[in-house]
Amino acid sequence: MLETLHRIVQEVSAAEDFGEALRIIVERIAAATEADVCSVYLLEEDQQHLTLMATRGLYPDAVGRVRLRLEEGLVGLVAEREEPINLENADQHPRFRYFPETGEERFHSFLGVPIIHYRQRLGVLVVQRQGRQRFGDADVAFLVTMAAQLAGVVAHAKASGGLDLLAGHPEATRERPLVGVPGATGVGMGRGFVLYAPTALDEVPDRPVSDPEREEAAFLAAVQAVREDVEALAGRMHGTLPEGEQLLFDVYLRMLEGDSLVRQTCRRIKAGNWAAGAVRQTIAEQVRRFEEMEDPYLRERAGDVRDIGRRLVMRLLLVDEDRREIPQDAVLVGQEVSASQLAEVPLGRLAGVVSATGSANSHVAILARALGVPAVMGVADLQVRSLEGRELVVDGYRGRVYVDPPQAVRKEYRRLLRQEAELSAGLKSLQHERSITPDGVAIKLYVNTGLVADIGASREVGCDGVGLHRTEFPFMIRDRFPGEEEQAQLYREVLEAFAPLPVTLRTLDVGGDKTLPYFPIHDDNPFLGWRGIRMTLDHPEIFLTQIRAMLRASEGLGNLRIMFPMVSRLEEVEEARRLVERARRELAEEGVEAPAPLLGAMVEVPAAVYQAESLARRLDFLSVGSNDLAQYLLAVDRNNSRVASLYDELHPAVLRAVNEVAEVGRRMEVPVTVCGGMAGDPGIALLLLAMGMDGLSMSSAGLLRVKWAVRTVPYRDARRLLDRALGMEYPSEVRRLTNETLEAHGLGGLIRAGK
Amino acid sequence: MLETLHRIVQEVSAAEDFGEALRIIVERIAAATEADVCSVYLLEEDQQHLTLMATRGLYPDAVGRVRLRLEEGLVGLVAEREEPINLENADQHPRFRYFPETGEERFHSFLGVPIIHYRQRLGVLVVQRQGRQRFGDADVAFLVTMAAQLAGVVAHAKASGGLDLLAGHPEATRERPLVGVPGATGVGMGRGFVLYAPTALDEVPDRPVSDPEREEAAFLAAVQAVREDVEALAGRMHGTLPEGEQLLFDVYLRMLEGDSLVRQTCRRIKAGNWAAGAVRQTIAEQVRRFEEMEDPYLRERAGDVRDIGRRLVMRLLLVDEDRREIPQDAVLVGQEVSASQLAEVPLGRLAGVVSATGSANSHVAILARALGVPAVMGVADLQVRSLEGRELVVDGYRGRVYVDPPQAVRKEYRRLLRQEAELSAGLKSLQHERSITPDGVAIKLYVNTGLVADIGASREVGCDGVGLHRTEFPFMIRDRFPGEEEQAQLYREVLEAFAPLPVTLRTLDVGGDKTLPYFPIHDDNPFLGWRGIRMTLDHPEIFLTQIRAMLRASEGLGNLRIMFPMVSRLEEVEEARRLVERARRELAEEGVEAPAPLLGAMVEVPAAVYQAESLARRLDFLSVGSNDLAQYLLAVDRNNSRVASLYDELHPAVLRAVNEVAEVGRRMEVPVTVCGGMAGDPGIALLLLAMGMDGLSMSSAGLLRVKWAVRTVPYRDARRLLDRALGMEYPSEVRRLTNETLEAHGLGGLIRAGK
Repeated sequence: MLETLHRIVQEVSAAEDFGEALRIIVERIAAATEADVCSVYLLEEDQQHLTLMATRGLYPDAVGRVRLRLEEGLVGLVAEREEPINLENADQHPRFRYFPETGEERFHSFLGVPIIHYRQRLGVLVVQRQGRQRFGDADVAFLVTMAAQLAGVVAHAKASGGLDLLAGHPEATRERPLVGVPGATGVGMGRGFVLYAPTALDEVPDRPVSDPEREEAAFLAAVQAVREDVEALAGRMHGTLPEGEQLLFDVYLRMLEGDSLVRQTCRRIKAGNWAAGAVRQTIAEQVRRFEEMEDPYLRERAGDVRDIGRRLVMRLLLVDEDRREIPQDAVLVGQEVSASQLAEVPLGRLAGVVSATGSANSHVAILARALGVPAVMGVADLQVRSLEGRELVVDGYRGRVYVDPPQAVRKEYRRLLRQEAELSAGLKSLQHERSITPDGVAIKLYVNTGLVADIGASREVGCDGVGLHRTEFPFMIRDRFPGEEEQAQLYREVLEAFAPLPVTLRTLDVGGDKTLPYFPIHDDNPFLGWRGIRMTLDHPEIFLTQIRAMLRASEGLGNLRIMFPMVSRLEEVEEARRLVERARRELAEEGVEAPAPLLGAMVEVPAAVYQAESLARRLDFLSVGSNDLAQYLLAVDRNNSRVASLYDELHPAVLRAVNEVAEVGRRMEVPVTVCGGMAGDPGIALLLLAMGMDGLSMSSAGLLRVKWAVRTVPYRDARRLLDRALGMEYPSEVRRLTNETLEAHGLGGLIRAGK
Repeated sequence: MLETLHRIVQEVSAAEDFGEALRIIVERIAAATEADVCSVYLLEEDQQHLTLMATRGLYPDAVGRVRLRLEEGLVGLVAEREEPINLENADQHPRFRYFPETGEERFHSFLGVPIIHYRQRLGVLVVQRQGRQRFGDADVAFLVTMAAQLAGVVAHAKASGGLDLLAGHPEATRERPLVGVPGATGVGMGRGFVLYAPTALDEVPDRPVSDPEREEAAFLAAVQAVREDVEALAGRMHGTLPEGEQLLFDVYLRMLEGDSLVRQTCRRIKAGNWAAGAVRQTIAEQVRRFEEMEDPYLRERAGDVRDIGRRLVMRLLLVDEDRREIPQDAVLVGQEVSASQLAEVPLGRLAGVVSATGSANSHVAILARALGVPAVMGVADLQVRSLEGRELVVDGYRGRVYVDPPQAVRKEYRRLLRQEAELSAGLKSLQHERSITPDGVAIKLYVNTGLVADIGASREVGCDGVGLHRTEFPFMIRDRFPGEEEQAQLYREVLEAFAPLPVTLRTLDVGGDKTLPYFPIHDDNPFLGWRGIRMTLDHPEIFLTQIRAMLRASEGLGNLRIMFPMVSRLEEVEEARRLVERARRELAEEGVEAPAPLLGAMVEVPAAVYQAESLARRLDFLSVGSNDLAQYLLAVDRNNSRVASLYDELHPAVLRAVNEVAEVGRRMEVPVTVCGGMAGDPGIALLLLAMGMDGLSMSSAGLLRVKWAVRTVPYRDARRLLDRALGMEYPSEVRRLTNETLEAHGLGGLIRAGK
């Protein structure tokens, strides 16, 4: 049965469109359960009506015409109750309702199960038989399992407009945005510019061509070029490869030139698609054929076909890259937009970023924030390919993307953009002002840095130093660990740029969602794995090189602070301190007199909250890494769209934990800062101010907003806000309260698009 | 450079033995860095001496003969400092020491980097050049990166005896055990019985054969059988498959019958290995050849070769399974021993379990504890194949496995086994005694169940009910969600067996490390993902079916408690309660009068600790899931061997968090129990008793041990123990303290093998 289930799910996933998917569903499920009827009813947009969308066994004409309210009929009852209903005499049930257009009267037994996706009711799956006999327990269980798996397909169709198309409402998608998570605030409007790795065949977009003949010629040339590559390869291998395996090349060439591949691709090019898109379509179809085969060996052959596709597309794109022009207002769209792709686009042409994967924590989001470009991440239902050249509105505040929005939506966002610009201009005037409340309580505002680009931006906003300098980037972009000298130069640059203001360098924090290509770490749960100080203490040669570089960079400056990430035990701090002292001693022996740096730890593992006092006794400062701390306290990976909605920095547990650390800091007279997302949120920043934090560290793009909030709301109001917030039980209550406070002080422009 | 790195690491990993690996290392690194010399020095067992183990460039005779103390020479300095040392004039450095047998005098520049694996110093990697010129920063970085990657290989060789073999001390491994984590306590002695999936080619063990001719005949028959399979397949596909692709079968057959495959396998059989082992060896060699190829397409062909190997081995094992007899004292050994494999061995023949992966949380470990069979999990350096038929001692207390142990080790463990038996007999007499301290404080001792097998065992130890019944197993062993009726029967069985004692059924807790084959969940960080109540609340149709089954099972009994896992928000509890009430109402409408169950939540997400009071207001009981709670508090996945050593239930943060929940329970008069690993540890159980826990829930195998501790140590002593423990800063301090307390009360037999 598991095999049947997998096969059906696979077939459905491979369907050309949602209509075909539904047809496969009803056919296969009817067969698997030996039912006379299998039908799918889907809930309409109004959440009140169900429509018959596909059937096997009822009259085909009824599809799209049979429509019932939730309170009507057995199908309605299944949806209403969100439970399976299994009856031998459906027609005798009080809720039975007869639709003559279906021909349903012949079928007596009825089994309906709800289709639910992440709590969202989507529809009902029904099987029926002529005989008056209940379906068995196994059938119920099979249908429930099936419905749970298919729910994703339906939800996807709904989100991506497949449902509207099927229902004949192609317009509806234009008003409904794609939903993701905010990556970088701001609003951007522009044209979709799809990024794809040439090896990621599935992401090659469709693109209309004006000159199909030129395109066809390009394709045939690519076939020829790949042919030559393969022949050359075969020639080189001759002699070293046993005869049997040489035959592989023949297979390969035959597949490449197989009538079907060339002919079908040319047909698609003539139909108006460009060559790379046509290759993708043809390969996808052939891959599907192989994947449907019974034999595991043959199924594996799909890989060969994909390889041919990749080689062809790579050839085509070698030519294409030169032809492709970045529009003036490009919105980068991709399955997984990378920081380096973003960096390649000239800044003036970049209107926004939209990525199907990733979160506010992704590097591309961090970079977008640093550059002030709006970004929406984790748009699970993004159909990357279809967005090339489309008009897009990127709402980085709410994590929404509108595709070809109607006039009204466009107008509204233009108005917001204007107001944004006014707000930014207003904030600019705060650059040289102190960050102090109207009633005289000061709090330091630091910037988070990690790129050279950050330095310039930070200077423009007027900060109190660097609260968190991430040292990962130079490690991530190289193909080996950077050497001591290389590192020292980079650190020197940051330390000098801000001197005499303090600069907090965090030691290498890889693992988790950041990996080094040359030092792979495969953890089943990377966030609970070998990361941060755990990794570097296990490799003192790497740690010492970095510490030596930091110390050397600080010679003659004296503004270096070193911070250790992922501390969960006191022993780690003691060991790290010992190594720092040793490095300093050894450098002194070599004639380098580095001043003693201040040492601190990130409080991001919950255990560190409990041991904050012990840590404070051993260190010069503490810094709350609120993103990770909240993830661990709530046991939520916020990059995971299935549970991201449970992540909330205003959860009472998070507020109390952060407040405890602040209290320890005050009691022990050790400065505590916050360097996660909480610090850059003006509403939460007020709570942190009231807790008595020594400083907040955030991206430079958000600093002036927080400064505005600090300079506007009196400390005593913030205290009152905090006292009320700490007594609350639900995150949503707290959010309402902070929003009200900001609005009441005329700071509404900080929490929504507009002013 | 990254490519070079990967290639070297791949080649090294594929090496036949450690000697070959070292030769590859020195050759390839010398070439990559354009050095005249590359050498590897490894630290000896005494941690005081380094020996030259391989070189390219120095005189080959020096290998194994050049030996220096840590305080000697430049190589010693690198190891001592755990830092790279880079010199242009090595011979002028004060620490330079000249070894005439190396011919080193010609080489002036020197670069040495330490080889370190999880903080363990293993050796030094050195490159040298004739010219008087320092190596560049890039070379240093490359060598550091290389050393970090190779450290794993060296550590593995060390753990698995490859190093001793190389050094000519094959005996040394016998005294040094393999190191894993305790899975189930106890000591077992027996013969290795290797389990492997027939599809897991790499795990097929070597096994000596008495009749090579019979084995060769079996192999040739398998070749013929696979040939026929493929031909039949080709026949079936004829017509449906394009001609080009039909050619694939020819390739396949040629590879299968290729001279090399058959001849090499037969040679290996003649050399004394059985057919399946010989196939594995031959295929591994051919796969390596393909994987070394430059072209990605050809590299992929390694998959075809592996497929041929799998088909052959499957054929061979069809015959073999009948021949293979389970020894009387089998120690199951496998890459990943599964609960079902364990269940297949007759209990009387099972002396122990050793698994390369997994942890105390794995299902096989849980099952082993339930059955009282010692188990060692996560033995990272386990060479599964080599343990077939070997004599093994499994120390489930310390997580150690001895292979072919010397007489002295065997004798010691036999003595311990005798004492164990005496201890068990003594504990048996506590079966009907109450669990109460000498000074009159009682605590309930519950059992954790999840299998039918648990029920019988639980009755024998005399418990106060079931504190945690895991409902996952029936979901995991089916190929669809179990139906309401099926579930109701299973729950009824447990509820009836213990009535009138309370039975706590936990609602479905999949996700994390438990997945359902028919409902795949792919989370990047499954422990921070869609699991427990998060998943079931998103699928009310699944949740309601389970709740209805529980309620129906409780009809007329009244001992049902329902517990919700992974609660991190109050809204979840409110929603779950609403659904339970609705299910009861609907059942009542259907004429089933289920008594109102007590409802509770697991406190395992740190946020629930902070919100314990709010939870207590909404629920009838709380239960601390200490395993997961500790994992989240410490941000450690204890299944991950890289960080498992950081996991400690006695970490001050864990103790304080658990104590907070106990305090809330006392204040709010809501019973709190602990149902994780802490509850079954006699030393920690005393701490939990002192915290005022209402009950402890553990595997039945451990219950009498805890009862003994409770009945022996007065409550006032436990209080004093707790007060001191809560003031401590290091987990190790607390452990020392609880151990001392147990020893002082004559309970030492509970914490170590022996009495």
